[in-house]
Amino acid sequence: MIDKDLIKRRVEAVRAAMRKKQIKALLLVKVPNVTYTTGFLGHDSWAFITMNKVYLLTDSRYIEQAEKECVNCKLVLRKDTLHNTLGILIKELKTIHSIAVEDAIGLKDINLLEKMVKARLRFVTKLVEPSRSIKDKFELALIKTAIEITAKSLKETVKFLRPGVTENEVAGFLDYQFRRFGGKNGFDTILAFGPNASRPHHQPGSTKLKKNDVVLMDFGAEYEHYRCDLTRTFLVGKPSPFFEKVYKTVKAAQAAAMAEIRPGASNKMPEKMARETIAKNGLPPYQHGTGHGFGLEIHEDPFLAIKSKDTLKEGMILTVEPAIYLPGQMGVRIEDNVIITKTGCKLLTGIMTKEFKDIYLGKI
Amino acid sequence: MIDKDLIKRRVEAVRAAMRKKQIKALLLVKVPNVTYTTGFLGHDSWAFITMNKVYLLTDSRYIEQAEKECVNCKLVLRKDTLHNTLGILIKELKTIHSIAVEDAIGLKDINLLEKMVKARLRFVTKLVEPSRSIKDKFELALIKTAIEITAKSLKETVKFLRPGVTENEVAGFLDYQFRRFGGKNGFDTILAFGPNASRPHHQPGSTKLKKNDVVLMDFGAEYEHYRCDLTRTFLVGKPSPFFEKVYKTVKAAQAAAMAEIRPGASNKMPEKMARETIAKNGLPPYQHGTGHGFGLEIHEDPFLAIKSKDTLKEGMILTVEPAIYLPGQMGVRIEDNVIITKTGCKLLTGIMTKEFKDIYLGKI
Repeated sequence: MIDKDLIKRRVEAVRAAMRKKQIKALLLVKVPNVTYTTGFLGHDSWAFITMNKVYLLTDSRYIEQAEKECVNCKLVLRKDTLHNTLGILIKELKTIHSIAVEDAIGLKDINLLEKMVKARLRFVTKLVEPSRSIKDKFELALIKTAIEITAKSLKETVKFLRPGVTENEVAGFLDYQFRRFGGKNGFDTILAFGPNASRPHHQPGSTKLKKNDVVLMDFGAEYEHYRCDLTRTFLVGKPSPFFEKVYKTVKAAQAAAMAEIRPGASNKMPEKMARETIAKNGLPPYQHGTGHGFGLEIHEDPFLAIKSKDTLKEGMILTVEPAIYLPGQMGVRIEDNVIITKTGCKLLTGIMTKEFKDIYLGKI
Repeated sequence: MIDKDLIKRRVEAVRAAMRKKQIKALLLVKVPNVTYTTGFLGHDSWAFITMNKVYLLTDSRYIEQAEKECVNCKLVLRKDTLHNTLGILIKELKTIHSIAVEDAIGLKDINLLEKMVKARLRFVTKLVEPSRSIKDKFELALIKTAIEITAKSLKETVKFLRPGVTENEVAGFLDYQFRRFGGKNGFDTILAFGPNASRPHHQPGSTKLKKNDVVLMDFGAEYEHYRCDLTRTFLVGKPSPFFEKVYKTVKAAQAAAMAEIRPGASNKMPEKMARETIAKNGLPPYQHGTGHGFGLEIHEDPFLAIKSKDTLKEGMILTVEPAIYLPGQMGVRIEDNVIITKTGCKLLTGIMTKEFKDIYLGKI
């Protein structure tokens, strides 16, 4: 259960963002933003934030849960639609003539709001996400537990790997370990053998593990709605000198990126350094980003990208995941999670080794 | 791989719906609708349907996959945003001055389309869903395979149930069986022991199975993007006469609903009959719907609901899932899948028994 002061601080941060944009009432429709500002873990509900109150609009299925989970927030039980319920609330409050609505809202909901709410609607983006990108101690504790569950699950799964097993079986076995250790998979596990590892978003299938195959696993447990996100690349057999070069280049690229992660640094620098390390070794660039925040969502602010104009902040937690893909041959991706400290960043996932000497099956 | 004629027929059905609304060009943004009309199984892509062509707008990550999967459709590789790519395409086509866009689109996308596309935008709802609610032979075959995988997985999981095991472990074990048999879970498995079974959307947790507990499982495998959706309620121990009454009432309610499912019948009748059966037995009503279609999505048309004005059609596949919930005590839900035939409906999930005599652990 989240404590009152933490929720208060989160809401105050959102209100500060509201004040900057002269917003007096904000409607949150995105599930993770509703959860973040109220503590409520259900769905199909909206949070409505004014300068002195937070309302949760929900329905009878969730009311028992909301009474337990919500902190510092007034519950409004809807009798018909959320739109109409908000309309009635605003009529009762009297002083609200304009509402800011998250632009993640769909067109149908906009049309219904315009019909049922007597207030001007204005659409806004990312009023909660900047706060969410910096994790508080409650969030950090849950992410750390998710990482512990993931480490235990990985240990079991590595033992399970053997020639003849399918990607599907390994993915299923790994997800099962998450459950055994009290979590669940935080996103669709990626499991790729051999040449399949060159496709970053490969879906596990009926491919069987063969000797000398690369095994790429992108995985992470979820615990109490918070998750982590790792990738490890293993090898069944003896590595060729070329594989060793590729693996060590990715590892060096990751180290180069991490060296650029600190408060005040540009979001683009880590990506730039990772890419330069790979290019210098004559290996091809990867087509995805170098890192992203995670927590209530699997991809959230901050994003490490050459085009970014943002800067990194203390308390952010993010992935660092350079890769090298060689279509038809193999892929190597190494993804870890770090938290930004006062002066740099700290590895959260060090318990899961990525040392070259440790990545052969049976060694871990 | 889906055959050309089937995709042609699907697109023709959508064009017939377009003609009725005088639409000459339709933009599909919902993933299942894009998949249904093109065969493409990736994400972040749009389908654009004119009266003589189907275009898939996608990016470099997906182009290889799209070339394999798409049937009868012209691939357009985007260089920047999807919005701008559509703008360029429409400029090239010259004859398109108005576009119908699925109203599932978000506000951000609307704003970008309005900026980048020189055509009037009009928003439409459910142009593809009516076709999708009637399954073709390709879809039926995949759903049948999903059901086979589910039946095998259930058999293993029932053997796994024993006092002391947690909901989380059972859910994980079941999902693992889906993978072992070549599928994956089609939605978040619901696993509830004892009093937890009275909450329809209970999330599996650390509750341990005790003697005389009800075990409610809501589950279904996904196979090649199509799924099924079942619920079974078991009992660990000897049933009380009251439990027997509750169980048999739910079963009778389901039979009463199924008796009303046939082409031309109203969507509300099955729900009405199920509810009347429960009320007649002096038991409380359930708060969710009585049935829904499924396939590419877990909830799709048709919906069995008292308020519905629709009628059922031959070839629709749907769940039938009445329930009785007794808060603090237990819950019983029985959910099967049926296909509507020329004269009635046929059970697709009969392989998974729901006979009262079979629901004690160890018997199945």
